Amino acid sequence: MKSDTPRKADPQKLVRFASAAFQAAAVPAGDADLAAKILVDADLRGIDSHGVMNLGGYIQGLRSGGINPRPDITISVGSPTTASVDGDNGLGPVVSHRAMEECLRMAKVYGTGWATACNSNHSGAGAYYVLMAAAQGMIGMHSSSGGSTVAAPGGKGRLIGNNVLAFAAPGKTHGPFVLDMAPTMAIANKLHMLQWQGKTMPEGWAIDSEGRPITDPTVYFATEGAILPLGSTAANGVHKGFGLLLLSDILTGLLSGDGGSMFRRKGAHTHVFGALRIDAFPTGGDFADLMDAMIEKLHATPTVEGAGRVRYPGERGNMTYRERSANGIPLRPNVVEALEGMSRELHLRLDDVWRA
Amino acid sequence: MKSDTPRKADPQKLVRFASAAFQAAAVPAGDADLAAKILVDADLRGIDSHGVMNLGGYIQGLRSGGINPRPDITISVGSPTTASVDGDNGLGPVVSHRAMEECLRMAKVYGTGWATACNSNHSGAGAYYVLMAAAQGMIGMHSSSGGSTVAAPGGKGRLIGNNVLAFAAPGKTHGPFVLDMAPTMAIANKLHMLQWQGKTMPEGWAIDSEGRPITDPTVYFATEGAILPLGSTAANGVHKGFGLLLLSDILTGLLSGDGGSMFRRKGAHTHVFGALRIDAFPTGGDFADLMDAMIEKLHATPTVEGAGRVRYPGERGNMTYRERSANGIPLRPNVVEALEGMSRELHLRLDDVWRA
Repeated sequence: MKSDTPRKADPQKLVRFASAAFQAAAVPAGDADLAAKILVDADLRGIDSHGVMNLGGYIQGLRSGGINPRPDITISVGSPTTASVDGDNGLGPVVSHRAMEECLRMAKVYGTGWATACNSNHSGAGAYYVLMAAAQGMIGMHSSSGGSTVAAPGGKGRLIGNNVLAFAAPGKTHGPFVLDMAPTMAIANKLHMLQWQGKTMPEGWAIDSEGRPITDPTVYFATEGAILPLGSTAANGVHKGFGLLLLSDILTGLLSGDGGSMFRRKGAHTHVFGALRIDAFPTGGDFADLMDAMIEKLHATPTVEGAGRVRYPGERGNMTYRERSANGIPLRPNVVEALEGMSRELHLRLDDVWRA
Repeated sequence: MKSDTPRKADPQKLVRFASAAFQAAAVPAGDADLAAKILVDADLRGIDSHGVMNLGGYIQGLRSGGINPRPDITISVGSPTTASVDGDNGLGPVVSHRAMEECLRMAKVYGTGWATACNSNHSGAGAYYVLMAAAQGMIGMHSSSGGSTVAAPGGKGRLIGNNVLAFAAPGKTHGPFVLDMAPTMAIANKLHMLQWQGKTMPEGWAIDSEGRPITDPTVYFATEGAILPLGSTAANGVHKGFGLLLLSDILTGLLSGDGGSMFRRKGAHTHVFGALRIDAFPTGGDFADLMDAMIEKLHATPTVEGAGRVRYPGERGNMTYRERSANGIPLRPNVVEALEGMSRELHLRLDDVWRA
């Protein structure tokens, strides 16, 4: 059944469907529930590019042997506040959740906690893991690296991962603050969406394998084009975006013993997680009130006509989360079709997921 | 004596001159030596905008009562890995050095260490503090906030600080890696230099107090213009640069109990420092070799004609450091003049600082 308008899924039932799909691919129930919850959480926050639209890819990876459904995840502790996690090629969300839980455990006792993870896979939206910290009164930090679709400044074609940097901090009336970004001009899923809509990219987003500017997303995919780091040009600070990508490679790839997105010795994806307990800082007592004051200052900032109110990072996601939790998650027709195909293939009931 | 060409200063003798100037402004000898060393270190690394060109400003601040020459810096420890430093309105480099030393002390015992600092002042180049960590086999992190010269996306005029983010990691054959950047289109000193050279800014760097684009640095200074966050426009990711500025305000301003660059309750500048001991991660053993491999990969990356070799952050600074340590620091005529004026006013010998 095709349709041009999105269908609305019930969040809880969508989690149950995704969990059943993971279990059909040999993932134990507990891990399946967790991975499903993390994917649907991205959809709830409006990060559609990292939600159930990727479920098919995860299932395919599990069934083809590319991802280990029953990993033996090991955590090696090197000091009271540092650990190295080996994901044993498990699902990225499962490995990442374990690593961030270890950070929270360390931070509760010692103030802060850090963990790297190697031998992992795509972990979905970074927002989830840093929000785990914010929910416990901590500042959460996270970076993730996989693939290598981004060019160096002046480079020809692909070199480094479209690495993610994510941070969260708890709010009070407003918040939480959650910054979840790639320090690049775009992520591949955004180019997929433009291609799907028949649109071009703005100038300065991407180059081809000879370093020439391109604006057609189809050319990007057909010729192994490369996305440019945030800043795009020398005059506009491309070395800053590139520096942040390298920082991510250092924290996720070098510190985890992997080698980073240019080498990849230990699995497809590497991560780093950090947690700083706010009340472990003697000056942390006013934090929540100061966060409210900061956000209210942003909201009161005069803007030019048509620009709308200044928002804090995560504001739109927080609003979308509340709205979709109440009214359901709108899924685009191609995502609905993919889920329907999965439903048929894995003999899982999907029809009860849709809202009237 | 005026000249159009830069004069070359002997680094050690320039440190001695700057220390004598600090001491003439009532700073104790130990703190004066330290602050002088940190300023000249910026000149050695080629970060001229944060070197002795600012000495006059520091001295003026000390002599006018704006900066406390003999601060009682207090360190409050909240957990084994977290501390809050109150700089008692002391010199920024002195406060920052103490705070990073505290991080290194904590990291040596517990793996990581974090410190915020409030009631501080301009601390010079962030590179210095993160390199203190790298020199001891740690990853150094730092952010600093002061002033409020940057606009929000769509905003009119100034709102938030041109906050610094700095990171360093040790290398082996190559390195250290040192990323020291503001997530904005430019820093004020760069606009000063353009103004001094009679040049305009590229489009997209700055706006006036009504939110209109400007390219004349003189207009920027005359009308209280605002610099734009990294990304500059919505299509090019200005919300990412702005998000990083807010993250800095959270870590430096909110966590230190100050309130951040939009409020400033506790002093002109706030900072945060962090240190992660690489050998506290069980997977950290290959780190130095992996850093070498990553840098060699960058150097071997094909680039478009005219772009030159891909460099790692800090590469130019490391080369400049070696070159200027051997051959002296070239100081521009206006900086030489300012030092000469200081020499006359404070009765300090300057003529032995210059190299033949």
